[in-house]
Amino acid sequence: MDTEAVEASAPSADADPAALDAADPLAELRRRFVFPDPDLVYLDGNSLGRPPLRAIERLARVATEEWAGELIRGWDHWLSAPGAVGDLLGTGLLGARPDEVAICDSTTVNFYRLAIAALDARPDRRVVITDRANFPTDRYVLEGLARDRRREIEWIDGDPVDGPTVNDVRAALQRHPGHVALVTLSHVNYRSAAIADLSAITRLAHEAGALVLWDLSHSAGAIPIRLAAHDVDLAVGCTYKYLNGGPGAPAYLYIRGDLQGTLRNPIQGWFGQREQFEMGQGFEPTAGIAGWLTGTPGILGLAAAEEGIRVAVDAGIDRIRAKGIALTEYAIALHDAWLAPIRFTLGSPRDAARRGAHVSVRRADARSLTTEMIAAGVVPDFRAPDSIRLGLSPLTTSFTDVARGIGALRDLATAANRRDAARR
Amino acid sequence: MDTEAVEASAPSADADPAALDAADPLAELRRRFVFPDPDLVYLDGNSLGRPPLRAIERLARVATEEWAGELIRGWDHWLSAPGAVGDLLGTGLLGARPDEVAICDSTTVNFYRLAIAALDARPDRRVVITDRANFPTDRYVLEGLARDRRREIEWIDGDPVDGPTVNDVRAALQRHPGHVALVTLSHVNYRSAAIADLSAITRLAHEAGALVLWDLSHSAGAIPIRLAAHDVDLAVGCTYKYLNGGPGAPAYLYIRGDLQGTLRNPIQGWFGQREQFEMGQGFEPTAGIAGWLTGTPGILGLAAAEEGIRVAVDAGIDRIRAKGIALTEYAIALHDAWLAPIRFTLGSPRDAARRGAHVSVRRADARSLTTEMIAAGVVPDFRAPDSIRLGLSPLTTSFTDVARGIGALRDLATAANRRDAARR
Repeated sequence: MDTEAVEASAPSADADPAALDAADPLAELRRRFVFPDPDLVYLDGNSLGRPPLRAIERLARVATEEWAGELIRGWDHWLSAPGAVGDLLGTGLLGARPDEVAICDSTTVNFYRLAIAALDARPDRRVVITDRANFPTDRYVLEGLARDRRREIEWIDGDPVDGPTVNDVRAALQRHPGHVALVTLSHVNYRSAAIADLSAITRLAHEAGALVLWDLSHSAGAIPIRLAAHDVDLAVGCTYKYLNGGPGAPAYLYIRGDLQGTLRNPIQGWFGQREQFEMGQGFEPTAGIAGWLTGTPGILGLAAAEEGIRVAVDAGIDRIRAKGIALTEYAIALHDAWLAPIRFTLGSPRDAARRGAHVSVRRADARSLTTEMIAAGVVPDFRAPDSIRLGLSPLTTSFTDVARGIGALRDLATAANRRDAARR
Repeated sequence: MDTEAVEASAPSADADPAALDAADPLAELRRRFVFPDPDLVYLDGNSLGRPPLRAIERLARVATEEWAGELIRGWDHWLSAPGAVGDLLGTGLLGARPDEVAICDSTTVNFYRLAIAALDARPDRRVVITDRANFPTDRYVLEGLARDRRREIEWIDGDPVDGPTVNDVRAALQRHPGHVALVTLSHVNYRSAAIADLSAITRLAHEAGALVLWDLSHSAGAIPIRLAAHDVDLAVGCTYKYLNGGPGAPAYLYIRGDLQGTLRNPIQGWFGQREQFEMGQGFEPTAGIAGWLTGTPGILGLAAAEEGIRVAVDAGIDRIRAKGIALTEYAIALHDAWLAPIRFTLGSPRDAARRGAHVSVRRADARSLTTEMIAAGVVPDFRAPDSIRLGLSPLTTSFTDVARGIGALRDLATAANRRDAARR
C-alpha cells in the first residue's frame, strides 16, 4: 500500500460535533461554498459537490463578458483552457506532470477511447481485467469493446467491502499469463469506498506486460494520488464530485507523457489537429495532451469546473485527506454506537488507510430508508441492493452534518423497527 | 432539390439598409439577444452565435437554484433534459419525429459513433463516400475509422463553390456498385455555404443500399430541414452556431426511430442503460433515443443551449430562412458593386435556393484583410486559403451590419491596393 503520512483524528461516538467543527482547520473553507438551505444535511457531495461561490460568479462573467462580449474572439483564450485547467488538476491533485492531463468530454467517452488506445497497443493480447463491483459505465463500455474487438473480460469477483485486492488482481493475471492487455479498476470504489492499491496493482500489471487505466472519479480531490510516481499509464475521472465542478461538469483524462505520442486516439477530431484552423487535409495530432482532444470543449462547464478544482488545490490534498479520515472515522463510530444495534452492518473498510471519503451502511430496507431520509432533509445516496452511501466531502461537510445525518437515520430505522414489530 | 416556398426579398446594392431593417419582421427578435457593444459589426454568428438574454438568466438560475439549491435532487429533472431539448430542436427545426433527437456530447463524438454504427450495419461494404471540402472534424474522424476498420474513403473533389452536387455523389456511388456502406456530407458547406441536395442524395444512397449521415452544423437554425420527410437515417450537428447555444455548447444526434433499436452504439455508457440507477450487470439500452446517450450530460451547457434553440423555434424557420436569403442576396449585391471591382470573387452560390445563411468572398490577401477587419471592429472569419466568411445569422444580423461590414472590407482592400501600387 502506498504509505501516507497523514495526521488525522478518530473522533469517538460521544465526541461533541460542534467542538470538532470548531477545531477543524478546513472549516474556514466552507465559506467559499454556497449553502442556500442551512438546515439541509447534504451527505452526497461525492455524487454532486456543492457550488463554490466563485463558480457561480465565474459563470456569470463567462456569459456576459466572454460569450456576449468577446464572442468568437473568446477562443483566443478558451483554446488553451482544457490543457491549463488539466494542469491545475493534474499537478495540483493527481500527482501528474505538466501536459499530462486535459479536461474534456465525459468520463465515459474518455474511458472508451483510452481503453481502445490500450487495446490497440497490445494487439496480440486478448484479455482485459476489471471487477464486477466497478462503476457501471466502465463495465458497460468494456463489454461493448470486448464484443466489438473480440476481447475477453476477466471479471474479478472481489469482496464487496474490501475488494478488489492486490491478490485478486495477481490471481486474475496468473489465469492468463502473457495474454492480459489492460487492467482497469476504480481507485476508490463508488459503493464501499475501498481504496485499491494503485501502486502495487500498477506494478503487477506492468510486470505482466499489461497497461493500466485507473478511474479516479471517487478519489480525485478526496485522497492523495501519485500518478507519475507510480508510473501509471492512463487515467480518467469526473470533476462533479469532490472537485465541485457542477452537474455534468466535463471530465478529464491523463496519459503519461511518453505514451501520448505512441498510443493512438480512436476519435481523432479537429481539436486534436496541428494547425487546427488551417483545416487542412489529413489528421496530424498536435504534440502533448492537446493532441488527445476531440470536439469543441464546453466552455461554460469548463469554467465552473476550474473554480471547483481550484478550491481543492488551495485547500491542499493532505488537509482534505486528514479531514476525510476524521469524518469517516466519526461516521463509523456513530454507526457502531447507533446503527449496528438496529440491524445495520458497515459496508466500508474499517481501516482508514483503505477507505476514501464516504461510508456505506447496509440494511435490508436501505431503499425506503433513503427515501425517508431525503423527505426529512438529509440527503444520502441509495446504492442497490442494500447500501446507504454517506458522502462526506471534506471541504463542505461538517461533523455536525455527520451527527445529524446518522442521528436521523437511527431515528427513522428505529421507527421502521417499531412498525415491523407492531405488524407482527 | 427540395423545393421551398419561401417569400424572400433580394435587396439591391443601393437599397437603404436602415429602411431594410425597419421593414424586417424579425428585427423585433434582436431584443431577445445581448449586444454589449453596439458598435461591433459581428459577422460570425455562424461560428459562435450571440447569447440570448434568457440564456444568461437561465445560467444564473441553474447555478443558484438548481445546482446550489437542489443539489443531487436536480437529476430528477435533469435526466430528461437531453431528450426534451432534443425534441424541441428535432420537431421544431429539423423535421424529426419526437424521440429521434438527443442533445449530448460533441459533434465529433456523435459523428464518430453514428459513423461506426452505420459501418457495423453494413459489415460487407467497404466504402465510405464524403467530400474533400467537408468540415475537418468529420474528415479526420472518417480517416481514423477507415484505418481502424479497414474501410476505404471515396473522396469527392467537388467544385469549391457549388459542390458537392447530386452528380458528384451519383458518380462516386457508381464507382463502387454494391460496396458503399455510408454516404456522409455536410448539409451546408462551412466555407461556401453551398446546400447539398439532402433529399436527392439520401434517395440515391438508399437506392445503392447505403446509409446516410448528415452534418447539420451549418444548416440547423438557418434553413428548413425535413429529416423525417426525406427518410434520413442519421444526422449530427452543433448548437453553438445559428442555435446560439454558447461556446462549446453540447451537440445533438438524430437517429431515425426504426434504426434506434437495430443499430448499435459503440460507446455504451451508463446514461443509455435501462434502470440506470440500479447499476446492474450487463448493458441493456433503454428504449428510444435515450438509449444512445453515453456519459453524464453537461447541464450548464444544456440549459443555455435550450434557451438558444427556443428563440429559433419561436421565430420559425421559414421566417429565419426568408431573412437569411434577403441578407445574403444583399451581401452578394454589395460584393458585386463594391468588391468585385477590387479583385474579389464570390465564394458562394449565386442561386439563393442553393445557399445557406453565410457568404464567402475570396481574395488572395484574405488572411491579412480579416485581421485588419477585426482590428476595425468588424468580425468575420477567415477560412484558408483565401476566403473571408461573412456569417449573416438571421436572428441577430441587421442589414446595416451587412452594409457596414462590407463597406469596411471595401475600404481596407482599397487601402491595400493603394499600398501595393505605391510599392511598385
